[in-house]
Amino acid sequence: MGDDGVQVLAWERARDPDRGRWALPGGRLGDDEDVEASVLRQLAEKVDVREVAHVEQLGVFSEPGRVPGTRLIATAFLGLVPSDVDPVVPDDTAWRPVSPPPAERAPAPDALPTPVRAPALAGAAFDHGTIVAAARDRLRAKLSYTNLGFALAPREFTISALRDLYVTALGHPVSATNLQRVLTRRALLEPTGAVAPPGPSGGRPAALFRFTDRTLRVTDAFAVLKPPGEHGRGAVP
Amino acid sequence: MGDDGVQVLAWERARDPDRGRWALPGGRLGDDEDVEASVLRQLAEKVDVREVAHVEQLGVFSEPGRVPGTRLIATAFLGLVPSDVDPVVPDDTAWRPVSPPPAERAPAPDALPTPVRAPALAGAAFDHGTIVAAARDRLRAKLSYTNLGFALAPREFTISALRDLYVTALGHPVSATNLQRVLTRRALLEPTGAVAPPGPSGGRPAALFRFTDRTLRVTDAFAVLKPPGEHGRGAVP
Repeated sequence: MGDDGVQVLAWERARDPDRGRWALPGGRLGDDEDVEASVLRQLAEKVDVREVAHVEQLGVFSEPGRVPGTRLIATAFLGLVPSDVDPVVPDDTAWRPVSPPPAERAPAPDALPTPVRAPALAGAAFDHGTIVAAARDRLRAKLSYTNLGFALAPREFTISALRDLYVTALGHPVSATNLQRVLTRRALLEPTGAVAPPGPSGGRPAALFRFTDRTLRVTDAFAVLKPPGEHGRGAVP
Repeated sequence: MGDDGVQVLAWERARDPDRGRWALPGGRLGDDEDVEASVLRQLAEKVDVREVAHVEQLGVFSEPGRVPGTRLIATAFLGLVPSDVDPVVPDDTAWRPVSPPPAERAPAPDALPTPVRAPALAGAAFDHGTIVAAARDRLRAKLSYTNLGFALAPREFTISALRDLYVTALGHPVSATNLQRVLTRRALLEPTGAVAPPGPSGGRPAALFRFTDRTLRVTDAFAVLKPPGEHGRGAVP
């Protein structure tokens, strides 16, 4: 996340095929690890990122011609780094801007959702633009029905700063008042009791908040149909 | 789905390893297909199931020792067949009951969700019980924040019949009145104008309903934060 919108960590390929294009960090699955262990190992080894607040499988990308030469099947992951973390990365690696989702519009009653086909990462190698688009859309959807904001936000934040993160990830305007009301009603947000230092323009100091929970949960899971006592506590498989 | 709860289509292994145990249908990825094409081909070839109302990637299962011998990595899918479809399946294949999720209970405020570790398919081969448990939990979660009920229900149904499907899949009681109210408010349900034939006990004939849409959507996606005109129309990445 940044002033330029959602960003993804990518490295520049120094060799053909697709020399000069941007690629997602990754590598081969080791003989003695599963894909979950592998992704954490590779993030740590290749891009020195250890502060990942949430990781989940995104999907398998297996189109036969997705990479030239020997067939490679990718298991892609979505990993989120909080906005206040700026890990040191190797020289060939950088945070690259992700294109926003296709323009929002009110669909006709019978319209199907617009499939995302345009690469979301400019100059991406292979199908990595498609993978980034899928990750962007997963993040956007899960922000709406889970507490996943915890993985984007610093430990403590003002509502205004949180709103900016949601706007960036959702790609459309969000009212800070609405955001605070919804997250509070769902018991996801609590005041820390402290206030932020005043900004350059002075004014009333803003209250700091934190997420009540830093484990992914469905926050609005059809609550009226849930058994008593379980409201808002559904685990996300 | 059935009187015995959620069911999964599985075949009995005739050879070691794990002879006599129940296995999910599957097979090797072909050279000229991606995993999505492969799963549809294999369902059609091996279990003659073509009436799948919804298919989605469930996840990659890659633990190094999950299958004896040469390492095999599985991409598992969740495929749903409506309750009124009863495809003819081969002799070694049957619908097997899936164990319900762990007992519901109100968690303590700081409790983590209970991870599912017990196999959900009795007598399952390899890690297939774990895969079935993940599928059961995915179905349960998506029923709560999407319109996925369309993939379980017949084209037309009474509210009472739909309630029975939700109760089976969710594993806890659901009020038919609540269900109708919530699905109607989300514009997921509409009356067909027809009524069901009276049951053996007579009584007032029940109205028939259908889902307004048979494409997966997030139905309650943080609606208050969405831009005008997009309420309830979010595509599920």
